[in-house]
Amino acid sequence: MIIYSKNIYLPNQVKKEGYLIINNGIIDDIVDSVNTNDYVDYSDYLIIPGFIDQHLHGWGTGSFVSSRDEKQLYEMKKHLPKAGVTSFLATTGAEPIDELIKGINSVGNVMNNQKEGSTLLGIHLEGPFVNESNKGMMNVNNFLKPSVDVMKKLVDSQNVMNSIKLMTMAIELEGAAEVIKYCNKNNIQISIGHSCATFETIKKLKELGVNGVTHMFSGMSGFHHRELGVAGSALYFDDLYCEFAKQTGITVKKEAFQIAYKLKGANRIIMTTDNAGISQIEKERYHYVRKQYFIPDGDKFIIRNEDGSEKVFDRTNYDDIKDLELSYIRSIQNLKNNVNPSVHDIIKMTSENSAKYIGVFDKKGSLEKGKDADILVVDKDFNLKVTYCMGRKCFEDV
Amino acid sequence: MIIYSKNIYLPNQVKKEGYLIINNGIIDDIVDSVNTNDYVDYSDYLIIPGFIDQHLHGWGTGSFVSSRDEKQLYEMKKHLPKAGVTSFLATTGAEPIDELIKGINSVGNVMNNQKEGSTLLGIHLEGPFVNESNKGMMNVNNFLKPSVDVMKKLVDSQNVMNSIKLMTMAIELEGAAEVIKYCNKNNIQISIGHSCATFETIKKLKELGVNGVTHMFSGMSGFHHRELGVAGSALYFDDLYCEFAKQTGITVKKEAFQIAYKLKGANRIIMTTDNAGISQIEKERYHYVRKQYFIPDGDKFIIRNEDGSEKVFDRTNYDDIKDLELSYIRSIQNLKNNVNPSVHDIIKMTSENSAKYIGVFDKKGSLEKGKDADILVVDKDFNLKVTYCMGRKCFEDV
Repeated sequence: MIIYSKNIYLPNQVKKEGYLIINNGIIDDIVDSVNTNDYVDYSDYLIIPGFIDQHLHGWGTGSFVSSRDEKQLYEMKKHLPKAGVTSFLATTGAEPIDELIKGINSVGNVMNNQKEGSTLLGIHLEGPFVNESNKGMMNVNNFLKPSVDVMKKLVDSQNVMNSIKLMTMAIELEGAAEVIKYCNKNNIQISIGHSCATFETIKKLKELGVNGVTHMFSGMSGFHHRELGVAGSALYFDDLYCEFAKQTGITVKKEAFQIAYKLKGANRIIMTTDNAGISQIEKERYHYVRKQYFIPDGDKFIIRNEDGSEKVFDRTNYDDIKDLELSYIRSIQNLKNNVNPSVHDIIKMTSENSAKYIGVFDKKGSLEKGKDADILVVDKDFNLKVTYCMGRKCFEDV
Repeated sequence: MIIYSKNIYLPNQVKKEGYLIINNGIIDDIVDSVNTNDYVDYSDYLIIPGFIDQHLHGWGTGSFVSSRDEKQLYEMKKHLPKAGVTSFLATTGAEPIDELIKGINSVGNVMNNQKEGSTLLGIHLEGPFVNESNKGMMNVNNFLKPSVDVMKKLVDSQNVMNSIKLMTMAIELEGAAEVIKYCNKNNIQISIGHSCATFETIKKLKELGVNGVTHMFSGMSGFHHRELGVAGSALYFDDLYCEFAKQTGITVKKEAFQIAYKLKGANRIIMTTDNAGISQIEKERYHYVRKQYFIPDGDKFIIRNEDGSEKVFDRTNYDDIKDLELSYIRSIQNLKNNVNPSVHDIIKMTSENSAKYIGVFDKKGSLEKGKDADILVVDKDFNLKVTYCMGRKCFEDV
């Protein structure tokens, strides 16, 4: 397959007239001209790398975090291209070890049989080594002290080598340093999250290979001028990556994001959604930021406001529920409005940085010869037109 | 008098060979050559404008905040040149209105009869319209709701026109908008301080003429990602000035200062000391940041640590007590180590910005023809060599 455009975003340059030659899901070549008329013409659209969502519990009709089984992952894979996400990490919460192992196995099985849709890159363990002090919406009963034995159990349970790509951890907990070292040896990136680590702890442990923070500002000790906490340290250390959950303006005000953007720059921000596939939950729960009750009822999903008013959704129907959480692409439209980044800077924050962070930059994160053909076609306002995952068209706005 | 140097810091340029001609306390001219050998040669030192301390309760053997009388002000004037401060605002706390009026009158009297030393520019009212929520070390019994009637009383008590130059205020309090407008009309700058104002309040009221914050980070609502508070708003709004109390590294960690410096830049930071002349207090008190008891006893001043250990000082002897608080010049040495600003940026933060903020830039804040001859001679490490106040040598390091 051949794709033509006047705006192909290669690393550090925009190809103003060019063709992407795609074979077997790979970008075989990027050339100035071809000897055929058999190409798709996206003349006036932008061609950019697909989004990578490294912090994603669920989306639409699939919620990995609710049951950790393969069916949920396939549902997510199917609908993520509609949000521009061409690859992702299935993200757990803090669960009992057996449930985490079940999740690791499901992820491995799906990695071995990707079928269609967005590519599952592996797993992001958000816990279990996190801190009650910053539990967010997680279940503290499943929180554990960092333990190399437990970590080894998880690593050994991988049915696909290095499927565990990322772990969110409270690095101030006793035993954290040993787990960080063990994870480093096993190519698992460590992000600080659900943590009240001090500046001094972070300064010390980042030398062991702690390179970023999870959902910046949320689930962490805030910035204070006498103790910078996790938020202040993430703002301070130029080299720490800041993962941001989607830009709704609710969990993190746009002005707070703007401050972080000004300090960190596009090179150290990683956009994610932290979406959960909320309609797929198994038990009723209360969302303290949204101030709403989420109630599952067979194929139905009910949102009840504090004033008693309700709205009922068909949770088997993607189109009925797709707007319950902000999609990756809409979050990027908000990002654009908030800080007006260049297209190259958007690519860094949505694809390149994450690919580097979780160790898949050899295949993902940029449009380059030899890399996977994960490609988005967008207009200048970042309305999504077409999504290719591994060279296969998985979404088209018609 | 004529001063010669190879490093005269004029606005936006360094004069590499030049002479400052000083007559009657004024910079009469700045020239390339003179027809006389009768000049002071500071060849290798830097010539910069004197420091302005707009937030100063006391220094050394004088403490305006303790008794608000003229004697204290003359003591401060005498010793401030040793710290590089060539002009200052006498700063109150929140006191009963009668006491504030007494202070305003003392300031006016001293302004009318400056004698020698650092120039008293007027008064900074830190209160009484401040918020119990962020009281810091102030006495809440003297806090008042903003009232134009009270403000009018203070303004009308001025025995020198426009001696009230600056007021620190909690702008979220009921009635604040009217007081801000009244102060604007009377050329009184408003700084937000001892305040828990929200982002929305600040966004709205800054349009009325609220242009900065008092002792950034201290005595204000902290930065949070869902409600930016005073600290977050000060970081966010590019045009708000941030006054910083001295860089001890205790009240505000240097890393927190570095974050603010990166965001605000030298154009919007005003260095002050917030010094109190602590040895001159009238009643015993506990300092919650230093975790020490301060005990006055006749001519003696005792500092008692929490473990009971004590140190006794002669509080009538400047040299015995001068190191009890960090001096302006030493704070600037710390500033230099913390963020490595250019000399011109140091001048902005120590002189120019404050002069503009409190409305004295026609006379102070830069070395220019026609301005007051407030001049410091420093070496490249900002060790103070000589201080001139209104053309008169008030300090020399011998």
